[in-house]
Amino acid sequence: MSGAPDEFDLIAQLFAPLSASYPGAFNLTDDAALMDVPPGRQVVLTMDAMVAGVHFFADDPADLIARKLVRVNLSDLAAKGAVPFAVMLAAAFPQGIEAEWLRAFADGLGQDVAEFSIALIGGDTVSTPGPLTLSLTAFGHVPTGRALLRSGARAGDLIWLSGSLGDSALGLRARQGQLTDLNPLHRDFLIHRYLLPQPRVALGPALIGVASAGMDISDGLVQDLGHLARQSGLAAEIRLADLPLSVAARTATENNNSWLACILGGGDDYEIAFTADPAQTQRIRQLADDSGVALSAIGQMTAGQGVAVMDRQGKAMEVAQRGWRHFSNAGEQP
Amino acid sequence: MSGAPDEFDLIAQLFAPLSASYPGAFNLTDDAALMDVPPGRQVVLTMDAMVAGVHFFADDPADLIARKLVRVNLSDLAAKGAVPFAVMLAAAFPQGIEAEWLRAFADGLGQDVAEFSIALIGGDTVSTPGPLTLSLTAFGHVPTGRALLRSGARAGDLIWLSGSLGDSALGLRARQGQLTDLNPLHRDFLIHRYLLPQPRVALGPALIGVASAGMDISDGLVQDLGHLARQSGLAAEIRLADLPLSVAARTATENNNSWLACILGGGDDYEIAFTADPAQTQRIRQLADDSGVALSAIGQMTAGQGVAVMDRQGKAMEVAQRGWRHFSNAGEQP
Repeated sequence: MSGAPDEFDLIAQLFAPLSASYPGAFNLTDDAALMDVPPGRQVVLTMDAMVAGVHFFADDPADLIARKLVRVNLSDLAAKGAVPFAVMLAAAFPQGIEAEWLRAFADGLGQDVAEFSIALIGGDTVSTPGPLTLSLTAFGHVPTGRALLRSGARAGDLIWLSGSLGDSALGLRARQGQLTDLNPLHRDFLIHRYLLPQPRVALGPALIGVASAGMDISDGLVQDLGHLARQSGLAAEIRLADLPLSVAARTATENNNSWLACILGGGDDYEIAFTADPAQTQRIRQLADDSGVALSAIGQMTAGQGVAVMDRQGKAMEVAQRGWRHFSNAGEQP
Repeated sequence: MSGAPDEFDLIAQLFAPLSASYPGAFNLTDDAALMDVPPGRQVVLTMDAMVAGVHFFADDPADLIARKLVRVNLSDLAAKGAVPFAVMLAAAFPQGIEAEWLRAFADGLGQDVAEFSIALIGGDTVSTPGPLTLSLTAFGHVPTGRALLRSGARAGDLIWLSGSLGDSALGLRARQGQLTDLNPLHRDFLIHRYLLPQPRVALGPALIGVASAGMDISDGLVQDLGHLARQSGLAAEIRLADLPLSVAARTATENNNSWLACILGGGDDYEIAFTADPAQTQRIRQLADDSGVALSAIGQMTAGQGVAVMDRQGKAMEVAQRGWRHFSNAGEQP
């Protein structure tokens, strides 16, 4: 090895400390990592990719890009009931990327590695003539055989949702200069929810033994419940009046009712939707109190198929926007 | 869910069968996968990314792009002594990519999933306005505590290399229209070695208990041996005369000696370099016979640091090209 430090050396310097808590990562000096799994536990794996100009704005702050990438993946693990412990990062950085940007990116990554008690255990860094392209593989563990799957719901189960719905989809619109009739503090709240989702990492593992099925609603409530319903061989019926909206989102819909479609189908919400036997209701309310995460019963699983949204009069609504599909709708976002 | 089948549906159709052998992949219908690890084994993980125009030509056949991606990762696992069992794929496909191209890509993936008895257990598909960008996370397992690391070499160990050296680097040059003085069949051989590397998946696990350290030489022999030497706190000395060259590569250097630098530093060779106590020599020769993979002793680990290449007269050579660094040299390839 010879020559002046270059971007690779800088990245190695910046990333190596993020692996320190994980001996099997060898300080990122080997070309592979070793992973041990605690007895009685299974590994839960997920992998999400993000592209500048498609999933985030190229000029979003570098630390927040890194943190959103981590959080989007940890949200998937939480929805399975898994305790996260490690991530691997593949990053294609645009040619000529600046050291300052890389430092901020590594800082953001480090912040979330610390906040969620995980380690960066490996990955790959390459150069691209195209936009910044990131993919993260995230690892968690669950008691063997107990993970929350999409397929576990039973007819009669209640449908629950964590947190509030639609903030991120509205935050994106606010970021794009829409929703100007909102209070600036409400706009800031929505934009923050868009930029820095809060994965429900404490709630997820607590749902094991309580929930019958779970997933995060990253692609939009209606579309994602559709997946859960189909995998469980059932239909899902949700009630508009019971959907948990933040004050900001509620104000937006009061100002202009057309934002409702965006809330129902918008996606990029990293909240957990789960189903549970009605007999679990008391325990779930207790979980909400314990975790400080609001949990709202928003509907019920029934025989049949598809997702129905009932309006305040109990009539099935037409839901036009069925969710965010990154691929074919790529032109829509940023 | 509604609407006509789009690229996402097509991809789901094409990829789901590749997960069939792995129950924890849920036919790719969940947003996470579950992994069990056999008792007494550790998971070995690696992740490699590839970008069109940087790591391969955008017009390379789609099936070969997929297969090279798989093989590059399996090579890393083999060099650790791991038995591969699963991969996860994050793919950013250019907007408007054609169904025919996607089918060929999935075919290639499926061919290698079958050939190496692995499963596609998850991943993510997104759209990009930029070049095709792929990252693969690959999983293997080894007996706990027995993986071949970069750091295990001891002074006096012999350095061994599988297969032949430099074919891929020369194949890239042939692909770019150079090496026109070679026999067309030799050119085809080199280009094939560049396009479709052969990971040493049978050899790798057989090296456990035989080799003291191992890695693949994807970044070039001299650079990669430099990593191994540094992680082991030693120097590596290799003898030019003992480097295994294919007839095609040997002919190229006989025609023009300057190709030697390309062979020593070129990279993209997915061969295993490993170190072993001289007492293992007989066993290693037997392994070569059993596996049908040539294994050549090319040098020795010694006290000190760095990598020295000895010429046919036993004098240390100047090696100008110290290996392929994707990031800072991105302009060099395609």
